Amino acid sequence: MSAAASMVASPQLKSVRARGRRSGPMRTESEVRSFVVVTDEPEAVGGTDTAPTPMELIAGAVNGCLGVVVETVAGELDLTLQALEISSHAHMDVRGFLGTAEVSPHFRDYLLAITVEIDGDEESHEQLRRLSEKRCPAVNLVRDAGVDLVLEWRFGPGES
Amino acid sequence: MSAAASMVASPQLKSVRARGRRSGPMRTESEVRSFVVVTDEPEAVGGTDTAPTPMELIAGAVNGCLGVVVETVAGELDLTLQALEISSHAHMDVRGFLGTAEVSPHFRDYLLAITVEIDGDEESHEQLRRLSEKRCPAVNLVRDAGVDLVLEWRFGPGES
Repeated sequence: MSAAASMVASPQLKSVRARGRRSGPMRTESEVRSFVVVTDEPEAVGGTDTAPTPMELIAGAVNGCLGVVVETVAGELDLTLQALEISSHAHMDVRGFLGTAEVSPHFRDYLLAITVEIDGDEESHEQLRRLSEKRCPAVNLVRDAGVDLVLEWRFGPGES
Repeated sequence: MSAAASMVASPQLKSVRARGRRSGPMRTESEVRSFVVVTDEPEAVGGTDTAPTPMELIAGAVNGCLGVVVETVAGELDLTLQALEISSHAHMDVRGFLGTAEVSPHFRDYLLAITVEIDGDEESHEQLRRLSEKRCPAVNLVRDAGVDLVLEWRFGPGES
């Protein structure tokens, strides 16, 4: 088998680990390499409101993940990224978590608004959009979970 | 329609928001209520390694989300939670992100190891397990995305 063929055939696995323990009411601290990831809940839900909720953290991670992919793909297309804003706005039906109705406990809908300040023409922007949506791990996690996901892209010229 | 019936029929939507912007190479800062969620990449990937990667953050969020649900369900079952450890170990095939093979860019497999120190008998532990897996938003997000997800539960008595 040629090197190229074997590269297509064999997975290149990357390990993702987080070791967590309860550190207070509704609060979890997870060790991730040298970092600590904390989640908590608002006081109304029984937490101490010292950190984002888990699903808020996932929304932040989706922003960051798409950011990495947009920057990577822009580099491949020889585009110069000037600025990037990515915002998530999702809704959950809390009856799933509460166990009071037979509905999905996670995101019911998910809007991603992306503003890219970059050079290049319309065709290269379309390529950037298409490849980024296809290759982003977190975006595809949400999409594959059957969430009603909408991505709104806005491209503008960077400052020259 | 009775109040109870309308509660079953109407979604109770909770909004999840995160407003992000690029704040350095491969780095994103998201505002989530009064918190800031940061993701970055190791230097080998072009980041500055100041924060977990987005998918590591999701792993930490999955730990924390299951923690909230276990604590909530334990309360409903009148069980007394003494300690809780939840760890994630997942693998991604990076060819999906790189665009070098037609594979999913997100988790290929995902192991969750849960150790619960709690009172109660085997039957109540089984109920705790079943209801927590069913009602956890993040666990179901991963499961619904078609990831090969395994949950390993271990129950032990709390310190008396």
